Amino acid sequence: MSNSQADQKDTQKAFGWAARDPSGILSPFLFTRRANGDDDITMKILYCGICHSDLHVTRNDFGSNIYPVVPGHEIVGVVTQVGRNIEKFKIGDKVGVGCVIGSCRFCENCQQDMESYCPKVDFTYTFIDDGTGKKTYGGYSDILVVNEHFVIRFPENLPLDAAAPLLCAGSTVYSPMKYYGLSQSGKHLGVVGLGGLGHVAVKFAKAFGMKVTVISTSPSKKKEAVERLGADSFLISKDTDQMKAEISTMDGIIDTVSAPHPIAPLIDLLKPHGKLVVVGLPEKTVELPIFPLLLGRKLIGGSAVAGIKETQEMIDFAGKHNIVADIEVISMEYVNTAMDRLARGDIRYRFVIDIANTLNA
Amino acid sequence: MSNSQADQKDTQKAFGWAARDPSGILSPFLFTRRANGDDDITMKILYCGICHSDLHVTRNDFGSNIYPVVPGHEIVGVVTQVGRNIEKFKIGDKVGVGCVIGSCRFCENCQQDMESYCPKVDFTYTFIDDGTGKKTYGGYSDILVVNEHFVIRFPENLPLDAAAPLLCAGSTVYSPMKYYGLSQSGKHLGVVGLGGLGHVAVKFAKAFGMKVTVISTSPSKKKEAVERLGADSFLISKDTDQMKAEISTMDGIIDTVSAPHPIAPLIDLLKPHGKLVVVGLPEKTVELPIFPLLLGRKLIGGSAVAGIKETQEMIDFAGKHNIVADIEVISMEYVNTAMDRLARGDIRYRFVIDIANTLNA
Repeated sequence: MSNSQADQKDTQKAFGWAARDPSGILSPFLFTRRANGDDDITMKILYCGICHSDLHVTRNDFGSNIYPVVPGHEIVGVVTQVGRNIEKFKIGDKVGVGCVIGSCRFCENCQQDMESYCPKVDFTYTFIDDGTGKKTYGGYSDILVVNEHFVIRFPENLPLDAAAPLLCAGSTVYSPMKYYGLSQSGKHLGVVGLGGLGHVAVKFAKAFGMKVTVISTSPSKKKEAVERLGADSFLISKDTDQMKAEISTMDGIIDTVSAPHPIAPLIDLLKPHGKLVVVGLPEKTVELPIFPLLLGRKLIGGSAVAGIKETQEMIDFAGKHNIVADIEVISMEYVNTAMDRLARGDIRYRFVIDIANTLNA
Repeated sequence: MSNSQADQKDTQKAFGWAARDPSGILSPFLFTRRANGDDDITMKILYCGICHSDLHVTRNDFGSNIYPVVPGHEIVGVVTQVGRNIEKFKIGDKVGVGCVIGSCRFCENCQQDMESYCPKVDFTYTFIDDGTGKKTYGGYSDILVVNEHFVIRFPENLPLDAAAPLLCAGSTVYSPMKYYGLSQSGKHLGVVGLGGLGHVAVKFAKAFGMKVTVISTSPSKKKEAVERLGADSFLISKDTDQMKAEISTMDGIIDTVSAPHPIAPLIDLLKPHGKLVVVGLPEKTVELPIFPLLLGRKLIGGSAVAGIKETQEMIDFAGKHNIVADIEVISMEYVNTAMDRLARGDIRYRFVIDIANTLNA
């Protein structure tokens, strides 16, 4: 047996916080991670963002019931160990890990750097039951062992805490802007919902040189959207006069809202050939009118997080344009309160857990 | 006043069949067309296809109530008069006219040869009330006057009767295959519904070198789809086992069905990054699940008919590959019976009216 195989059988002690049942309440949890393999790095986790999915999964909103669940897929830290084959990273490097930590590496999607669409994708923490019984634990924990292919190099100039949410939120909005051909200077983008995803979408779109209109149910967010985040305009989605005045003006819309909401008025905002991209996760089906899709050759499409290569591209772009999330840094002990606040939308715009300083075994 | 302006004020007598009320019953109708202007051609109509839209509009299914309506936008004939500026056509040329006979010529869509998406598009016959009061009469009539820009040159080798339906049905399926990047050899296309649009979609897709699966509620169409039209396989949409076996196998789907039907199972048939294109006109909204769109970066999009340049490209492609519709040629007197048969799907696959030989003033 080679040392490499022996290493794979060993484990490292790990410590985090897990939800144990649909109450979603998180509490301390001891577990193990694999020993560092030849192609792995081990990282000490410094910060982990709280994604809205973390809330859904800990509370079993997707019905997958995969307790205990250690959430977290907006993970930044520092490399503490490298396998013998590692050339890309060295101990001390600042690195990030997003939603994906494994894939088959051979399928059509993997070959085209779209690991997140690989049928055998391994998510950073288990959030749906894929029937394999394989279980992964996320970033609300002290260390992480990852194959180096799935590790993102962090730009030196970005603060680790505020940049952590880019690994999911940033990737989730950057990737569809690219794929659907929206990320072009002068194009007009609507951003529906000014939350964790939406506020980052505004920043990326402005960095691409786009005209940005925030579409929200909350008039109270107008000042912030325009004055602080740099949006060009603001539409209150419930104000039919405002909405009518903007019919057929947008090249694309990124819809970040998970809560049920009508999409017909959004389709009307699109110019011919416009694209409505949904990145929120509504649990129910939506009512889609077909006529306007036909007459205007419009489309409604989805998008998951970026693959690894594109996530690196996204974070490098963020580094170049100084894009970070607006965050509130919290201690591990505060996480359950934070989850409750997140559930009622009481956060502008992302919680980030200070793991290194507040997670005590 | 120039001769040209004087010409425009004169008119030509025309004769056709019109529906007068929501019964949809067509009967003889005398009307006028404009005199042939400097940039116009006048054509003697030889054949006109019966599109499913003709049925919808004559029976007021879209609620636009624009009687009298002379339907018909799959029109072929021969040029009988040319204006002084006409260089592209001469008397005796075989020509076709599809759904569009006018547009602003200056907007972004017109500049990019997408006249069908021009906000000021003139349809060949009025089928929605656009509030302008402008009225156009279609091809169930003896002559047509059209600006030459909107006239299609017909390939010599195509039979005029069987090729007539390509001007709408062909254009409607060809354009989205191009726009959505599906028309590539080796790609796998699903075609939902084997009617006027669907059977032509199969022929174009096969000419593009695609693998084609017909998806239908009618097991009786299997033999015809595979043996005569050349489809590679056939799926009965109500057979859940058959549908399950084909999950994640298709690059794209052209959905031609207007009748209400679930689209979630169609989305499941798509591979990641697959595209479901709707070209039928369901009157009601459809229930769209969002999760599979996100996880697979799938999209559902619409498409109208091609612009003029692309319609010419389509008909030239059809000429090269000998693509025509499967038709039943009828007399003008038979049109009301044909409409009833079309309403109950009793036609394989397109009625074409022999205008020249059966329309008697």
